[in-house]
Amino acid sequence: MPAPAVLESPVLARLRAVLGDRVDTSPAALEAARADRSGHASDGPPLAVVHATSTADVQQTLRIAHDTGTPVVVRGAGTGLAGAANAGPGELVLSMLRMRRVLEIRPDDLLAVVEPGILNGELDRVLAEHGLWWPPDPASKDISTVGGNIATGAGGLLCAKYGVVRDAVLGVDLVLADGRLLHLGRRAVKGVTGLDLTSLVIGSEGRLGVVVGATLKLRRIVPGTPCTIAATFPDARSAARGSAAVTAGGAQPAIMELMDARSLAAVHALLELAPPAAGLAQLTIQTDGPNAAAEAEQITTVLRGAGGTVTVTDDAAEGERLLRIRRSMHPAMASLGTTLIEDVSVPRSALPDMFDEIARIERAYDIVIPTVAHAGDGNLHPNFISDSAEIPDVIWRAADELFRAAIRLGGTLTGEHGIGTLKSRWLAEELGEDQWELQRDIVRVFDPAGILNPGKVFAARPEGSDA
Amino acid sequence: MPAPAVLESPVLARLRAVLGDRVDTSPAALEAARADRSGHASDGPPLAVVHATSTADVQQTLRIAHDTGTPVVVRGAGTGLAGAANAGPGELVLSMLRMRRVLEIRPDDLLAVVEPGILNGELDRVLAEHGLWWPPDPASKDISTVGGNIATGAGGLLCAKYGVVRDAVLGVDLVLADGRLLHLGRRAVKGVTGLDLTSLVIGSEGRLGVVVGATLKLRRIVPGTPCTIAATFPDARSAARGSAAVTAGGAQPAIMELMDARSLAAVHALLELAPPAAGLAQLTIQTDGPNAAAEAEQITTVLRGAGGTVTVTDDAAEGERLLRIRRSMHPAMASLGTTLIEDVSVPRSALPDMFDEIARIERAYDIVIPTVAHAGDGNLHPNFISDSAEIPDVIWRAADELFRAAIRLGGTLTGEHGIGTLKSRWLAEELGEDQWELQRDIVRVFDPAGILNPGKVFAARPEGSDA
Repeated sequence: MPAPAVLESPVLARLRAVLGDRVDTSPAALEAARADRSGHASDGPPLAVVHATSTADVQQTLRIAHDTGTPVVVRGAGTGLAGAANAGPGELVLSMLRMRRVLEIRPDDLLAVVEPGILNGELDRVLAEHGLWWPPDPASKDISTVGGNIATGAGGLLCAKYGVVRDAVLGVDLVLADGRLLHLGRRAVKGVTGLDLTSLVIGSEGRLGVVVGATLKLRRIVPGTPCTIAATFPDARSAARGSAAVTAGGAQPAIMELMDARSLAAVHALLELAPPAAGLAQLTIQTDGPNAAAEAEQITTVLRGAGGTVTVTDDAAEGERLLRIRRSMHPAMASLGTTLIEDVSVPRSALPDMFDEIARIERAYDIVIPTVAHAGDGNLHPNFISDSAEIPDVIWRAADELFRAAIRLGGTLTGEHGIGTLKSRWLAEELGEDQWELQRDIVRVFDPAGILNPGKVFAARPEGSDA
Repeated sequence: MPAPAVLESPVLARLRAVLGDRVDTSPAALEAARADRSGHASDGPPLAVVHATSTADVQQTLRIAHDTGTPVVVRGAGTGLAGAANAGPGELVLSMLRMRRVLEIRPDDLLAVVEPGILNGELDRVLAEHGLWWPPDPASKDISTVGGNIATGAGGLLCAKYGVVRDAVLGVDLVLADGRLLHLGRRAVKGVTGLDLTSLVIGSEGRLGVVVGATLKLRRIVPGTPCTIAATFPDARSAARGSAAVTAGGAQPAIMELMDARSLAAVHALLELAPPAAGLAQLTIQTDGPNAAAEAEQITTVLRGAGGTVTVTDDAAEGERLLRIRRSMHPAMASLGTTLIEDVSVPRSALPDMFDEIARIERAYDIVIPTVAHAGDGNLHPNFISDSAEIPDVIWRAADELFRAAIRLGGTLTGEHGIGTLKSRWLAEELGEDQWELQRDIVRVFDPAGILNPGKVFAARPEGSDA
């Protein structure tokens, strides 16, 4: 009578022989690996989840996957918003969550070397003991991994002033699809030796290799007391003009967030605050550093000149209360229905026009699209709300118009969430067919057998392509 | 009797038919294209210099070069220090110096769109009228082009605080080897759509394509009066420790330059200043922005604590006088003999050890290596001096030891000058053979026929490779 292992696929048997119980085929693990936080899931459960605990585990898994032509989907905490880490039938999941060590912290060199599975927020708590921080601060930072942040090229609230992931990584250790380990980048803050493959890996959404370590560029914690400003405007367009006036005035706030009327009303309802006046939009701004107070004063004057009603505080608790309204956006949206969170980014001057486009699309499709924006850098998150569990076709058609409008205004499909599965059909439209094919050819250099996250990012193909 | 044009190679005849007198075969132009400022020249004059005046000129030139298998070397102002733009027999030079327009300046979006041939310093003068600047400031900025800065991924004095070229480019328009035009990157400050090919092109030294336009990320001119600090120390190691103490203290100077004793003595002699005390090394530091004075005071305290003798001023003329000593480094070196300017970069904490290594190599080879460092970011420029017109073998052997020492200390071959021809033999040592081959395969995706700057950067091949 055959032993149970023989009933498994040969690839699982080989993995188990090497990795033992780090190969997980429990129904709960397989089911969890089907979806991220985009509201989208794969067609069915994957083959298995490998819980890697070391670079050697990753290499061995990939060698077996490569030998057997088994597709591999790398996952962190599964907080992505574009479906890039969703794994389906026949795919192997490589979970990095157990590789979460901080290997080195160097306050003198302002760098840290970490494994990819550490949570961004957890790293920040460790770094704070040294007076340091890693600036990327996606809204998901308490639940998302550094490796996931690197895979998506994550941004966040603070990035207009302090940069995105691409500005904060000196090097990565990358395991290629065939199991070979490369050390990309450097420990020195400056370097131009060869091609910048570190930047190429950042935001590559699991298509080029598996990040097993990262050398991060740190900052010292900013001294001084932050000032927080809340300003309301009669509508989103006026608020967008107010934020543009702040940028034009030369101030550089740490945070500058815009909430349109629908967003503000939804959050007020969720938090049981008095409802805002109809149409009212809000800017929430924070200045920091030794000039926080002077910058806040300058910004207040600019916002009043732009027609805003302004509140300003240097009290930490009151500042947190004002920011909480912005931070409650995701639960407020969830309370409205099924949400497709979009992520277009436009030149800052196009922000008012983009809000006009969103209003036009709402009317054209008879839907609501509450929208928040990282106004300091022109990155908008329009939330397409529907009342069915699956995202209905009308939402996809409206999103299609939104993407085209953003590109027309000089913008881009995705500011910080990535392409994943959800936006791959629009990728060639932004890149052009020649660039789309060139990028896909670069993927093939890293992964000639095409086993890493196949179908993601470069799934849709331009007309006439042989992809 | 054949007409003179028939005596030319078919490729020149085809180029002239399309580009007329923009195809330059004057002996002076051909001779000038053989060398950059590295002190190194090619074996002989190239075929011709094409003075492109438009993207269409570049595309037509490349189509003809591609058809005929003619290698193409792209040149800006020829101020490179690694030989990347040196053109030799059989090669066609594509000069970008006549494409120097500023196409767009957007103060509201903090961006400019420029052609590649504009000089960095010229651009800054144009931007200053709008209260703006482009931060990259290589020492060559008055004579080097923005396109050349992009090709090398240039740095400069200000980059510890304000970033390098890679931090200051949103997108590039790139003509591929076969003449196709791609638009890489974006106008929005944030974006993660597809692979980051803009970063890949920055620092690629003419191997991936021809940059015909760039969308630059600007800053507003920093307000306030800068403060300048000069501090002398008994030796370079103490000065390096002083700079490390400044970084460790949390200050972020705009400029922090270290000159060792040989550099300082040479400059004093050139400028006819009183000779410094034997062994004396100097830090020259500038703080800027609204907190310049407070930061200068904090730094002064730190430097005195580290054993420095400190002068500080907020007078612009006096500040310029102090900085002039640093800025006179290149002519001072030229006055000593033939110079090979090197460019290693190490983690900041390794700066004192790197100075020890340089002293050791000086003794071992009986040579002098005056060294300056961008101490704020660990980037050293050791100047290997010799008295023969050609760089002698002993210098190359000493440089070889220097590179190995830098890599051993966690550093890199080149912080801001690039690999070019002069450092290609060490490239595989830093990257590892697997990464070296992967990078070269990426070059082949962009340029399968291998006509763009062949032999540069990836010239030396690892053992056993089929490059």
